Amino acid sequence: MSAAIPDSLKDLLERPIVVAFATSNPDGQPQVTPVWASLEGEQVWINSAVGRRKDLNVRANPKVTVLALDPENAFHWAEIRGQVVDFVEGDAAVAHINKLSGIYAGNEDYYAFNPEGKGKETRVIYKIQPTRVNGM
Amino acid sequence: MSAAIPDSLKDLLERPIVVAFATSNPDGQPQVTPVWASLEGEQVWINSAVGRRKDLNVRANPKVTVLALDPENAFHWAEIRGQVVDFVEGDAAVAHINKLSGIYAGNEDYYAFNPEGKGKETRVIYKIQPTRVNGM
Repeated sequence: MSAAIPDSLKDLLERPIVVAFATSNPDGQPQVTPVWASLEGEQVWINSAVGRRKDLNVRANPKVTVLALDPENAFHWAEIRGQVVDFVEGDAAVAHINKLSGIYAGNEDYYAFNPEGKGKETRVIYKIQPTRVNGM
Repeated sequence: MSAAIPDSLKDLLERPIVVAFATSNPDGQPQVTPVWASLEGEQVWINSAVGRRKDLNVRANPKVTVLALDPENAFHWAEIRGQVVDFVEGDAAVAHINKLSGIYAGNEDYYAFNPEGKGKETRVIYKIQPTRVNGM
């Protein structure tokens, strides 16, 4: 089961909009955190660090949901429900967080803002294949 | 188990910020939708209509999570995890959606915007008792 993101909603994932990323805690409570995201072909990619609560959640249950709200227009939003189909660590994950940092923070060196994490955390990309998309 | 919302985060629920409301679908997929919210004492109140997907979800699993992001400041946000401890229908629920409509849309008559729903839907308040609050 796969769903396409309509062209009319793609800008929500291409502009520097901080999105809500929902995973499920082991006790069934949703965990929702603000994260950066990018649209890569038909997938949504999110970048985190190995071992965080959301990372543990995604590995236990790869069903995740992203809500992107246009901060300038409450009637423009996208809910992307999907499945994490790939976890990518290493150089590719660092390149991705640097790309996101360029889009969201105007500096393609993520660790310029987060020097405490450099060399101490393992970045990871969650490649999300949409299974259902709602929005307007 | 109960958690207080720090004063430093309360503005996120007092200003007309559209929040992300997460419930769990029966298959374990988070459902996340944009909704209005109000802070009522220590509780967060959300208003929906009986029978919607999120309504069915909340009744099956009252563990819900709200993420409020300041649209003007990405470093100011609150994640409120909680439990729906009360469902209120009837006049009180209509009064609440009208209050929200006043705050968010500048008109305390919700059905002025949504005439198709008037008399056809049953509004319901979800009174959420926070159990854990994260934010900055």
